[in-house]
Amino acid sequence: MKIKDKNKEQQILNATAEFITREGAAAVSTTKVAKQVGIGQSSLYTYFPTKQALLKAVFDREQQNFAATILATGIADDKLTTKEKLTRYVTALVDFAIASPASLTIIEQIKFLPDFDGIGLNDPHNPVIQLFNSAMAKGVLPKIDASLYVTAIFAVARRNGENIRQQKYTKNAISKAQILRLVLGEDFGAS
Amino acid sequence: MKIKDKNKEQQILNATAEFITREGAAAVSTTKVAKQVGIGQSSLYTYFPTKQALLKAVFDREQQNFAATILATGIADDKLTTKEKLTRYVTALVDFAIASPASLTIIEQIKFLPDFDGIGLNDPHNPVIQLFNSAMAKGVLPKIDASLYVTAIFAVARRNGENIRQQKYTKNAISKAQILRLVLGEDFGAS
Repeated sequence: MKIKDKNKEQQILNATAEFITREGAAAVSTTKVAKQVGIGQSSLYTYFPTKQALLKAVFDREQQNFAATILATGIADDKLTTKEKLTRYVTALVDFAIASPASLTIIEQIKFLPDFDGIGLNDPHNPVIQLFNSAMAKGVLPKIDASLYVTAIFAVARRNGENIRQQKYTKNAISKAQILRLVLGEDFGAS
Repeated sequence: MKIKDKNKEQQILNATAEFITREGAAAVSTTKVAKQVGIGQSSLYTYFPTKQALLKAVFDREQQNFAATILATGIADDKLTTKEKLTRYVTALVDFAIASPASLTIIEQIKFLPDFDGIGLNDPHNPVIQLFNSAMAKGVLPKIDASLYVTAIFAVARRNGENIRQQKYTKNAISKAQILRLVLGEDFGAS
């Protein structure tokens, strides 16, 4: 594939991402995306043969970006305590949601595709699930299914990012400590 | 509108709801829904002139059902304490998500429509938001924006309902006390 083609592919993905954040994944159509990019629909199909393939590609791009951010926090680093890992994970997720609210919206919107299983919530090899299972085994967190912690944190981080984007309140109105306390309990965050 | 027509309208809404729970709102098309119901697409348009109108109607049906369930818990009943109201609200939401996981999936999937603002999260007249604001003012809950509590509870209830539906664990594997503690803190639920 030529350089020029790669650019076109990125333009198609960007236009689709914009549609999703503005109107939701349900509103995406290959006709509208092709028009936005200024190419014919048949040309778009040479990159993405179906709407589902297009949505999947947008999702994969955002998800890889998100996963890289989470792994960079050191949640798999043996030198950190469990409590430090949990704190870093929540902090990174909250920061990511503030910096890229559109990215989490896209992940939320597309993850319902038939071949997609949440954010790997049912995968015991998922390092985030492993972190929470380990924290519960050590008594650092009360016991419950790990997927419920991850879901709560993802939802709260995303809503906080959206509230800031919609100027419901400013970036510093709610501290990391308040969010940590909400999602992990009073041993974490503010007293 | 004749009785027969009302039945047809409900069939269209049911078929659309099924599509959403199976493949997501992004996969709904008026062509597919009409085919499923066994009517022509032009006939479908006499009920719902656009796909967005169809999705909105499905959402409204599920949302009204959900709102009625929540209001029936007594969250606006002055004879209950704030803590009782909070406990009833969370319990009702968790039960609703177990009984009707599809219903919450549909609400989640469609709420991104352009004219829809979350679950009224930014509406100070929303009785749920009022309950949380009152609880924080009284010191029953730590202070943070009320929308973050509501978001966490909705997400956890929905994930728990989905986990049970997917037979990840049974209905009694996780107690209400465990969920209350996760979303409202250790003053609620199990010690």
